[in-house]
Amino acid sequence: MRRTTGWRATGPTELRRTEIERRDLRPDDIAVRVDHCGVCHSDLHALRDYGQHTNAPLVPGHEFTGVVTGTGPEVTSFSIGESVAVGNIVDSCGACAMCAAGQENFCHSFPTLTYGGTDRQDGSTTLGGFSREYVVRNTFAYPLPAGLDPAAAAPLLCAGVTVWEPLRSHRVGPGTRVAVAGLGGLGHLAVKMAVALGATTTVISRTLDKRDDARRLGAHDLVDSTDPQQMAAARDTFDLVIDTVSAPHDLAPYLKLVAMDGTLSLLGYLGPVTVETTDLLIGRKKLSSAGSGGRRSTAEMLRFCADNDVTADIEVLPSAQVGTALDRLRRNDVRYRFVLDMSDLD
Amino acid sequence: MRRTTGWRATGPTELRRTEIERRDLRPDDIAVRVDHCGVCHSDLHALRDYGQHTNAPLVPGHEFTGVVTGTGPEVTSFSIGESVAVGNIVDSCGACAMCAAGQENFCHSFPTLTYGGTDRQDGSTTLGGFSREYVVRNTFAYPLPAGLDPAAAAPLLCAGVTVWEPLRSHRVGPGTRVAVAGLGGLGHLAVKMAVALGATTTVISRTLDKRDDARRLGAHDLVDSTDPQQMAAARDTFDLVIDTVSAPHDLAPYLKLVAMDGTLSLLGYLGPVTVETTDLLIGRKKLSSAGSGGRRSTAEMLRFCADNDVTADIEVLPSAQVGTALDRLRRNDVRYRFVLDMSDLD
Repeated sequence: MRRTTGWRATGPTELRRTEIERRDLRPDDIAVRVDHCGVCHSDLHALRDYGQHTNAPLVPGHEFTGVVTGTGPEVTSFSIGESVAVGNIVDSCGACAMCAAGQENFCHSFPTLTYGGTDRQDGSTTLGGFSREYVVRNTFAYPLPAGLDPAAAAPLLCAGVTVWEPLRSHRVGPGTRVAVAGLGGLGHLAVKMAVALGATTTVISRTLDKRDDARRLGAHDLVDSTDPQQMAAARDTFDLVIDTVSAPHDLAPYLKLVAMDGTLSLLGYLGPVTVETTDLLIGRKKLSSAGSGGRRSTAEMLRFCADNDVTADIEVLPSAQVGTALDRLRRNDVRYRFVLDMSDLD
Repeated sequence: MRRTTGWRATGPTELRRTEIERRDLRPDDIAVRVDHCGVCHSDLHALRDYGQHTNAPLVPGHEFTGVVTGTGPEVTSFSIGESVAVGNIVDSCGACAMCAAGQENFCHSFPTLTYGGTDRQDGSTTLGGFSREYVVRNTFAYPLPAGLDPAAAAPLLCAGVTVWEPLRSHRVGPGTRVAVAGLGGLGHLAVKMAVALGATTTVISRTLDKRDDARRLGAHDLVDSTDPQQMAAARDTFDLVIDTVSAPHDLAPYLKLVAMDGTLSLLGYLGPVTVETTDLLIGRKKLSSAGSGGRRSTAEMLRFCADNDVTADIEVLPSAQVGTALDRLRRNDVRYRFVLDMSDLD
């Protein structure tokens, strides 16, 4: 086994620096020196649940960039020294209809998650990117396009592709009216991407002090979700409303904003949601959800971001401050994504 | 005022033959001798609620065909003696974005319902088509195309357009895979229309004895919703699942049948419905609803049905047997729509 260093959970709010093992390279594996790893809301959920359902070890982190340090003998698409990126899935069955369609994130036998997943060959629990090295099947790593800052690009691999898939599947482009509800890690990337795709883009937020940020990100308009008049004026005006609000909330006010034949797309992990069928019926509106992305759209998204100069707005902290990053993320005190610099693990 | 005869509710299960008034013709009104009126599930709902929320008089019936017997001075598009059809809305504001888009059924100030609605000019309660005459603004009546049997065409005006709108808005045609859950008044018309549009059409039913009917209606396949193996084999295979089941039910099994980027469209008046966001997320599936139709699509649907020989499978009863029709509809004992013959009201 290979040895590296990482941040492993010892409780629902505690991570401890520790030595961890990585598998020896399989023929189609690459080893990646992790340089930057984003801190995602999912990491908070995983920590909160730690020890409740399983005793498996937990090393969070599933959006990272780094450099290839080793390649298995069958790997032809990566070379040592190349910049790469890895997202929240690292394997899939490769045989089902979803994998065949390039949507490994919907794999019928469930994709292997970057951490907390079960390796398809040896059954071990995968350990995430809050570590100095990761070993991954090369088909689930992506070349990091030149021109993308490796730190600011890390969040693209989870937050980025999560907003990219609904934007693409709804054919957002010039003339499309997009609203983004919630301006956080997902929301601010949704705004940047929608604007770069040419859509007329509006931010729906209850946080008035984000007005300047919304403009700076490129949004054309801002609607204060606490102002009934503004919400009424925006009724039926958006082809796509991307709802990134992560806490359970009433969907009716957001459905009202959707234009005829448009869609409300939920990106938070909201569990069961309830809607009035008449709120869907009046205007033939649709409710959908999205999360993560397949290999094809992840690669496409990275090219698009490089071509359009889209990366996350980040605050970089040394990995030793992972506790601070998680605390502040819990309080939504970040604009808009923490990225851990892993070089302090050397 | 004009006088005619109709069936008026005297309780939640009772209708009594009585004289009713119709307004004198306004300049843009036509008078229609009602010959055939379909019996819709909504009529059952209206009767069940009768007297609970209002003391307004109730004459059900909102899908009927007949003959023009009078025209107001401004009416140029209808002549006396012409066959016409009327559906479940008879007026709208005409000014909002939905009306401008030809979707008067979604009028922002709510369309005027054919019965139980409030007339936009005199504030009276509208009385429905279980009567021998109806007076309607001519823009909400439709020429009945030649070749359509007037009795079998009556249900097209509510049940028909309710299934037509989702079929059209989802661009159903050759190559589309459509499933219809529930084979009743709505479902059997959805099957006929989907087949006529060229879609590969499957019936999802728990009523095995409807298998022969499904084939006769043109369905290419039938899935028994009580058989887990059949339901599992049909997973992710339909671009559009039209769910016509009118009682509250678990949507998860139907969402599983939807293919990637496909839609589950709810046509029953189900009130609040709950779905797991992951059931939408996995496969980027959409939940929508539909009901009734605008003037444009109603006219389009009637032309399509005439061109493709689509009408409802009906059982015609004299209007005096309206009680029997309602009783049997309550027990789903009809294949597939009751139509009342109003000539016994002369």
